[in-house]
Amino acid sequence: MSDASPPIVVVNPNSDEAVTQAMSAALEGFRLGGGPAIECVTFDDGPIGIMTELHVQEAALRFGQYAQTRPDAGALISACYSQPGVDLARSLTRVPVIGIQDAGVLSALARADLFGVIAVAPGSIPRHLRHLRRLGADRRLAGEVALSEPVSVAESGRGERSFGLLMEAGSRLAAMGAGAVVLGCAGMSGHRARLEAELGIVVIDPTQAAVALALAAILPGQA
Amino acid sequence: MSDASPPIVVVNPNSDEAVTQAMSAALEGFRLGGGPAIECVTFDDGPIGIMTELHVQEAALRFGQYAQTRPDAGALISACYSQPGVDLARSLTRVPVIGIQDAGVLSALARADLFGVIAVAPGSIPRHLRHLRRLGADRRLAGEVALSEPVSVAESGRGERSFGLLMEAGSRLAAMGAGAVVLGCAGMSGHRARLEAELGIVVIDPTQAAVALALAAILPGQA
Amino acid sequence: MSDASPPIVVVNPNSDEAVTQAMSAALEGFRLGGGPAIECVTFDDGPIGIMTELHVQEAALRFGQYAQTRPDAGALISACYSQPGVDLARSLTRVPVIGIQDAGVLSALARADLFGVIAVAPGSIPRHLRHLRRLGADRRLAGEVALSEPVSVAESGRGERSFGLLMEAGSRLAAMGAGAVVLGCAGMSGHRARLEAELGIVVIDPTQAAVALALAAILPGQA
Amino acid sequence: MSDASPPIVVVNPNSDEAVTQAMSAALEGFRLGGGPAIECVTFDDGPIGIMTELHVQEAALRFGQYAQTRPDAGALISACYSQPGVDLARSLTRVPVIGIQDAGVLSALARADLFGVIAVAPGSIPRHLRHLRRLGADRRLAGEVALSEPVSVAESGRGERSFGLLMEAGSRLAAMGAGAVVLGCAGMSGHRARLEAELGIVVIDPTQAAVALALAAILPGQA
Amino acid sequence: MSDASPPIVVVNPNSDEAVTQAMSAALEGFRLGGGPAIECVTFDDGPIGIMTELHVQEAALRFGQYAQTRPDAGALISACYSQPGVDLARSLTRVPVIGIQDAGVLSALARADLFGVIAVAPGSIPRHLRHLRRLGADRRLAGEVALSEPVSVAESGRGERSFGLLMEAGSRLAAMGAGAVVLGCAGMSGHRARLEAELGIVVIDPTQAAVALALAAILPGQA
Amino acid sequence: MSDASPPIVVVNPNSDEAVTQAMSAALEGFRLGGGPAIECVTFDDGPIGIMTELHVQEAALRFGQYAQTRPDAGALISACYSQPGVDLARSLTRVPVIGIQDAGVLSALARADLFGVIAVAPGSIPRHLRHLRRLGADRRLAGEVALSEPVSVAESGRGERSFGLLMEAGSRLAAMGAGAVVLGCAGMSGHRARLEAELGIVVIDPTQAAVALALAAILPGQA
Repeated sequence: MSDASPPIVVVNPNSDEAVTQAMSAALEGFRLGGGPAIECVTFDDGPIGIMTELHVQEAALRFGQYAQTRPDAGALISACYSQPGVDLARSLTRVPVIGIQDAGVLSALARADLFGVIAVAPGSIPRHLRHLRRLGADRRLAGEVALSEPVSVAESGRGERSFGLLMEAGSRLAAMGAGAVVLGCAGMSGHRARLEAELGIVVIDPTQAAVALALAAILPGQA
Repeated sequence: MSDASPPIVVVNPNSDEAVTQAMSAALEGFRLGGGPAIECVTFDDGPIGIMTELHVQEAALRFGQYAQTRPDAGALISACYSQPGVDLARSLTRVPVIGIQDAGVLSALARADLFGVIAVAPGSIPRHLRHLRRLGADRRLAGEVALSEPVSVAESGRGERSFGLLMEAGSRLAAMGAGAVVLGCAGMSGHRARLEAELGIVVIDPTQAAVALALAAILPGQA
Repeated sequence: MSDASPPIVVVNPNSDEAVTQAMSAALEGFRLGGGPAIECVTFDDGPIGIMTELHVQEAALRFGQYAQTRPDAGALISACYSQPGVDLARSLTRVPVIGIQDAGVLSALARADLFGVIAVAPGSIPRHLRHLRRLGADRRLAGEVALSEPVSVAESGRGERSFGLLMEAGSRLAAMGAGAVVLGCAGMSGHRARLEAELGIVVIDPTQAAVALALAAILPGQA
Repeated sequence: MSDASPPIVVVNPNSDEAVTQAMSAALEGFRLGGGPAIECVTFDDGPIGIMTELHVQEAALRFGQYAQTRPDAGALISACYSQPGVDLARSLTRVPVIGIQDAGVLSALARADLFGVIAVAPGSIPRHLRHLRRLGADRRLAGEVALSEPVSVAESGRGERSFGLLMEAGSRLAAMGAGAVVLGCAGMSGHRARLEAELGIVVIDPTQAAVALALAAILPGQA
Repeated sequence: MSDASPPIVVVNPNSDEAVTQAMSAALEGFRLGGGPAIECVTFDDGPIGIMTELHVQEAALRFGQYAQTRPDAGALISACYSQPGVDLARSLTRVPVIGIQDAGVLSALARADLFGVIAVAPGSIPRHLRHLRRLGADRRLAGEVALSEPVSVAESGRGERSFGLLMEAGSRLAAMGAGAVVLGCAGMSGHRARLEAELGIVVIDPTQAAVALALAAILPGQA
Repeated sequence: MSDASPPIVVVNPNSDEAVTQAMSAALEGFRLGGGPAIECVTFDDGPIGIMTELHVQEAALRFGQYAQTRPDAGALISACYSQPGVDLARSLTRVPVIGIQDAGVLSALARADLFGVIAVAPGSIPRHLRHLRRLGADRRLAGEVALSEPVSVAESGRGERSFGLLMEAGSRLAAMGAGAVVLGCAGMSGHRARLEAELGIVVIDPTQAAVALALAAILPGQA
């Protein structure tokens, strides 16, 4: 792949640059010689975290507008678990567009019979379930559980407190029959590998899963 | 990633070395600097093509036995659309095991609302539908169609005749509402990029999709 | 119910005042003595018709914003078949919020075993199917067909040409087993009664269905 | 609508005139100037309550026979949650026929993502689940719970004891994720508004929901 | 099994004694030494054929009443494809009660991936589909087709004309992917074996299937 | 049926002759005068119990090979709950092939609205759930529970300890709404009748259910 190969553009729709930095660090392993660049973008005019339906809808429009400015991209990733703007962006560009909830859940289905989801907060669960129905994946859901204490998006991927909460949630999902756990927020990437090792079942970071699907969309184009 | 990074092992369960060669060529784009090696393996004692349920069952046992000999692998891929031995291998090794039908179909779901499948021969369709029910993806199937003339697995990925047959099948699926088409055989990879360009909708090669999922399973482990 | 009873607010998210007028006329039968007023609102800054995903997303935000300005309403109806902003508005107001696709399809399920949908244009069908999956109603869909010639939203509810196209589509759905037909656009109301009479099966206008559900949400509150 | 406008006929298939009176009172809000009359009918030869499958089957026949005597009706409602005779009556009359379980559940789906049902007694739950499967709504059921103490149909809609039992059941359903609760018996109407206010989520009385759907079937016919 | 072993009672809910005779003949193979007697009963006061919803509902009550008079039975079979009264009878007796639609369809699922149904007349298809949804078997239905010419229930099981119509319908179902065909009427038994031989796929008579399930319910009780 | 009538061949794919003997005893009631012989076969080269995926896969091949040696059979039954080799055998012989999980679950669906499954060990549950999804029966599953203490296959069908464990599991399933319980292992037959009597709900032995379906496949062939 030449230097001019189209990059994978990962959009963090919130304005927290620290979240984008953590995301970029978690994707370091995918930056390979000869492979596409992986750009991580922050929406400076976004909210500090995507917490409400209003945030999701505003981010959707912003993502759609941004998608039109990046015809040079090899793939565009909406890197919030609510994956704002995926349908919209698909209608506005021919560049492949991938949502991280889709990618995370579908990757889990390829690795185990039943999967579970860890939500940052209970309020997100109904929105996630609604999306799983649309996705058609609800029949394989072992369950979804929220962290038992409030954690910010930025905090969710580092530190012992959030790791402990993730272990607690993951253990409950394993007991419910989950063979794979999807991290239900883009900010938890930093704990993925350790969580997988300690839980003993597959743990999937949805942003990493989306980048892998983006690679599949781009790389074979060389042939 | 160091030189000793664990390889992705792609197993062609038939004994046709030419099919393995074509598969390996179609995966060339995934061999990236610093990334895992991608080994393509032929089962010399397999049949020349996986055509029958007996072939599938025999290949399953062979794949399970082989999986036990490769604890060094980063991921194991059962690279026949019937994905023989995936359940078995998962019970015998802790190495991630991925089937290409799962990977192809799930990747299609991440790219479009409805998907279609192109089968090499009509006889495979009931077996595929049965697997889609188990996978839980049947509700999003626009349809599955077989090539309208007999084509060998090896021939299915090269030459104008097989390309024409793929175009005909793909066009029918697009008319049935498919937004993405999965190539229902490991041998069709060679036509993927051109078919996608000419059909104007996403075309997914299941082996490439499986390798992408394998990358996701391996690469983040570095963090 | 007193004069001050809260009104049902029906929002036409496009800027075509003629469409709003037709909608209001089709709801005349629901304006009953002692019942709530039924206001029909045009979004002056909306597009002339909701034709694209971008229109839908922009209308969603506008509907959400508008919802916050109407705490006095008894119910809010998103009166475009793509029902922009229903989830968003629900998160921003305690006033009942109803989408016309939901209302139309669910009313059809209460009247017949299988239902069909008439779309104004083929391009809307994938978006509708996606919503039916989320709604969980896809298992009872006999089929969805588009008008066989282009018709504007405004034109779709009046005149012999559009009536003929509706009859053609409705007849095809009846042949596919539909016992009820949902008009897949807010603009077709004017043809409902005649179409039902001539087809001989139930025909449902989604805006009328939504107003009926709104009445149920408001009226019992008097008790 | 003229004086001769066809009435909505609500059939209480049990012989408890007090239940019919309460039903009629709960529908008072729907009796609007210029709108259809709403007649509530008691089946004098019915059982005092529809408690068994035999009651349901006998009521079905009675409802079918009655339907044939009311070609003058604008709509016929089978106002027992088991909705006896809906299929039968549809085969015998062209008047719209609506069952209250259908109406209640479908209205709930138009108001929230997941719904719950409160049953008067545990013995009804299997019959309800069976109907939800037929209806295709089972995928959106958060759960169904019965009142924890025996309550007669007549008593279920008035008094503090039954209200307390409804609050207990409704709270459990809210904790199971229900965004709307359907009262699983025609007799509970009297508690609807207060229950909705105290639970803080949508509460749907199925008879009111059915009358609203009947209005939608009748009123637009004026146009 | 002693002479006093409880009989399997097969109820033909129509009053056509010739249909009962044909049914009894088709069950001859199940009358085995030491096994239960198989009684075939005609409802003299039933209609000459179960053709309408009213017939079905009346037969349901009659079957329920009859069930209470046969506590001596080993199993009771409602031998009309609409299986009138199965739910009712189950609430009135502890004797196992089996419906022939359930038995036929479920037996087909045990023999092939996808099944088809042959209806005597198109009018029955919506009723059958509704039941398949309740049964949860709709996802494996390849299709249902009606005989292309009117045939009486009695005639449907004998003679070349009805055999030809069955062959035509069965061939269409095979082309739609059915690996097993269920005869959608109790009267077609006489053609089963020949149809299976000529079609080359499994053909299931629902009454025979129900008797087999009844044997399973009775015989192991001896142990 | 003549002496030369084709036998039902029930294959115990493990090598424990005692299990085969118990199976044969539990089928004694099905050996009727004039009916087919019921042969129970042990795979001497099988494992002592089918405990792992590898056992299942090896048994599948063995069952397929055996099926080819028995063109004289009237029906072949794969009598392990994992039903190894059913798909394979169907591709190799025209003799009807029946799996006991299919037969047990489908028979339960013909007897009650919701069913439950008792597994010998927790490790089998994911494999069973996967099969139920493929079967399309997952929507009617009340639940599956494993015996709370380890029991060998041979021991699972006799003695007070295993009976007590079955009662405990069955009671939990009844509390979860199951109207019928399927014994999730071929070895539990000996407890079926007593368990049904003490639990008060239907209990189904899958091997007996499979033999009944085999009778239905064979006996009508006489007509």
